[in-house]
Amino acid sequence: MHPDTADTTIVSDIVHDLVTVIPAGGVGSRLWPLSQPHRPKFLLDLLGTGRTLIQDTVARVAPLSDRVLVVTGERHAAAVGAQVDLPVEDLVTEPSPRDSMAAIALAAALIEERWGPRVMGSFAADHLIPDAEAFRATVREAARVAATGKVVVIGIEPTEPSTAFGYIEMGQTLSGDARHVVAFTEKPDAETAADMLARGGFAWNAGMFVMRTDVLLGHLDRLQPTLAAGAREIAAAWDGADRAEVLGRVWPTLTKIAIDHAIAEPVAAEGGVAVVPASFEWHDVGDFDSLAELSGAGDAPTSIGREAPVGAVGARGPVVVGGTKPVVVVGVDDAVVVESDEAILVTVRAQAQRVKDAAKSLETT
Amino acid sequence: MHPDTADTTIVSDIVHDLVTVIPAGGVGSRLWPLSQPHRPKFLLDLLGTGRTLIQDTVARVAPLSDRVLVVTGERHAAAVGAQVDLPVEDLVTEPSPRDSMAAIALAAALIEERWGPRVMGSFAADHLIPDAEAFRATVREAARVAATGKVVVIGIEPTEPSTAFGYIEMGQTLSGDARHVVAFTEKPDAETAADMLARGGFAWNAGMFVMRTDVLLGHLDRLQPTLAAGAREIAAAWDGADRAEVLGRVWPTLTKIAIDHAIAEPVAAEGGVAVVPASFEWHDVGDFDSLAELSGAGDAPTSIGREAPVGAVGARGPVVVGGTKPVVVVGVDDAVVVESDEAILVTVRAQAQRVKDAAKSLETT
Repeated sequence: MHPDTADTTIVSDIVHDLVTVIPAGGVGSRLWPLSQPHRPKFLLDLLGTGRTLIQDTVARVAPLSDRVLVVTGERHAAAVGAQVDLPVEDLVTEPSPRDSMAAIALAAALIEERWGPRVMGSFAADHLIPDAEAFRATVREAARVAATGKVVVIGIEPTEPSTAFGYIEMGQTLSGDARHVVAFTEKPDAETAADMLARGGFAWNAGMFVMRTDVLLGHLDRLQPTLAAGAREIAAAWDGADRAEVLGRVWPTLTKIAIDHAIAEPVAAEGGVAVVPASFEWHDVGDFDSLAELSGAGDAPTSIGREAPVGAVGARGPVVVGGTKPVVVVGVDDAVVVESDEAILVTVRAQAQRVKDAAKSLETT
Repeated sequence: MHPDTADTTIVSDIVHDLVTVIPAGGVGSRLWPLSQPHRPKFLLDLLGTGRTLIQDTVARVAPLSDRVLVVTGERHAAAVGAQVDLPVEDLVTEPSPRDSMAAIALAAALIEERWGPRVMGSFAADHLIPDAEAFRATVREAARVAATGKVVVIGIEPTEPSTAFGYIEMGQTLSGDARHVVAFTEKPDAETAADMLARGGFAWNAGMFVMRTDVLLGHLDRLQPTLAAGAREIAAAWDGADRAEVLGRVWPTLTKIAIDHAIAEPVAAEGGVAVVPASFEWHDVGDFDSLAELSGAGDAPTSIGREAPVGAVGARGPVVVGGTKPVVVVGVDDAVVVESDEAILVTVRAQAQRVKDAAKSLETT
C-alpha cells in the first residue's frame, strides 16, 4: 500500500508493521437522502472536496500503513473498489452486517493468517480529520504503546459537552502521553456531559483502536470464544477454495456485538486498555447540523455540493445541500434543504438528529 | 359563446345581452415558483382538478354570456388561446400592462364598436368559485340592476376578518337584494376588519363589476377623460388596418389606474354604485396558506398536484405542492414545500404572504 515501504526509514519497525483496518459499514441515516442503504455515508463527498470520506480515510492512513484492509458489505464492494485503489484481496466483504466486532475480528484473524501477528489500527471509514499528519503522529504513538500488549484507544479532546459521543475516563499516566483507561461511558445526557467537561480527564471515544492482533484475538478467545473461533475459521479458509462454504456456514453464527462492549469495556475493567489523548480536529459529520457547521454556515445562505443559487426572505442562515434548482427559504430560520436524486428533505438545524427516521416515514405513507 | 344562445328562453334579454370581460393579468407572485412572469397564476391548475383557473372562469361565465372577451398580455396570448376555446377576435392583447382600468375601458369601448352598448360583467381570471350556478344567479341579479344605469359590484359575504381584501360598505336597499354602496375601503388592519365584521353591513370587494358599457364610458369621460378618449380611439381602430399603429401610439399614454380608484370609489361617492350581496363561496387563492386550506390540509401530510409520497417526522401538517420526488419534513410544523420545473420554495403557512419577495431574493444572490 505505502508506495515507499521499502525505503521508509523515519518510521519505526512497529509502525512499519502496522496494518490498518477500515470497517466501512453504517448507512449514516441522519444524512438521508444523501446517504441511502445503497449509497452509505462513507461513499459520499459530503463537503464537496472532490474526495469521498473513505477516499480521505485511506489517504490519511496509507503513509503509515504496510497494508490497508477495508471491510465492507458485499453490496458496497464494487463502489468501494471503484473509489479506492486497493489490491483486490485487501477488500474484505461481509455477506451481511454483524456489527463491528465481527468485522474487526475477521480482519485481525486474516492478518495473522497472511502475515503473522501484527499491530493493527482500526479507524472508521466516514470520519473527518483535517490534519492528517497530526492524526498519523498520534497513531504512531498509539502503535508504540500497543506493541507492549495494551489495547490502545485514541481519545479526542472534547471541545463541547456533546451528547452524541461516548466518553473515555482517563487515569494515571502509563508512558509518554499514554494513560490508563479507567472506564468507557456511553453517550451521556447533557448534564453528565457538562459535568465531565468541568471535571476534566475525559476524552471522546471516536472508535479508533490500535492493538496487536494476537492481543485482540487473545482477549476475544476469553471474552467471546464463539466469535473468536468463528472469525479464525473463516480467516483460515478465506484465501482458499472453501471461503464461500465456510463463510456461508459460519458468518451468520457470529455474535452481533460492538467492539466497545466485546473488548473495550471489559478489558478496560481489567486494566488492559490505554488511551493516547489527541487534540487534532475530528468530526464524525453525523448530521446536517454538523455538516452545516463544518461548511462555515452563518447568517447568509450556504450552498453545499451545488451550483444553483439560494435565496432567503426573512430566513436566517438557510443551508441547501445538493440539487440543481434554485431554492428560496421564506420565514424559517436555520432551515436545511437537501436534495438527492431520490428525494427532498426539509428540516431545521436543531432538529437534524431526527432525520434518522425520515426514510421510514415514507414507508408508512 | 353560449352554445344554445338562439334557443335560450329562461334567461332574460338583459342577461342574454351580457358580454363578459375577463382581465387576465397579474403574475400571482405569492404563488412562486408555480407562478412565474411567463406562467401567471391564471394559467395554473392550482388544485389539480384538470382545469386551470382561467378555464374554470370561462366555463363559469359562458352559460350567461353572449360573448366572452379575455384581455391579457401579448406574451400570454398563445397560452390563453391554447387553454380556452374563444374566437380569436375575442382574445384582446395588451402590448404592456397598464392596470385594470385601461384593460376594462378598452374592452368596453370595443364592445360598443362591435355590438353597440351592452351590459358587461368583469371578473378576474384567477379566482375560485365552487358553486358556479350560485355565481351566475348573482350576476343575473346584478345585470338587472346594471340595466337601470348603476355601476354594480358583487359583494362577497365575509367569513372572517380578513386583511387581504378591500371592503364594501353597504347602505340602504335599492331594489330586491341590491343596496346602495356607501363607500369602498382599502385592505384594513386586523382591528378595523374585526370591527367591520362586528358592526355588519360590509362585504368583501372581489373586483366583480357589472355595468352598461355606456354608463362606464360615460363616467370615464368625466373622471378620466384622457383614458376614455384613448380607449375609444384604440377600439375604433382595433378591427381595422391601423390597429398596430394606433395601439403603439396611444396605449402607452393611457393612465395607469385601477378600476377601484378610477370608477368605483368616485362614482360611489356620487351615489352611482350598487352592490348585490352574495353568499357563494369565493377564494382568490392568493398564497400557499390559502391553497393548503382549500386542499383540506390538516395534521397529516397533504400533497397537491403531485404523485410522490410525503413523509413527516415530528412535523404537523406538511403541505407539498408539485414536483416528482418523495419529500420528508422533519421537525417543522406547517411546512410548505413547493417544487416547479424552475425552483424549490420552502416556507411555513403563517409566512406564506412573504413568498411575494422570493423570486427577488434569488436575483441578489
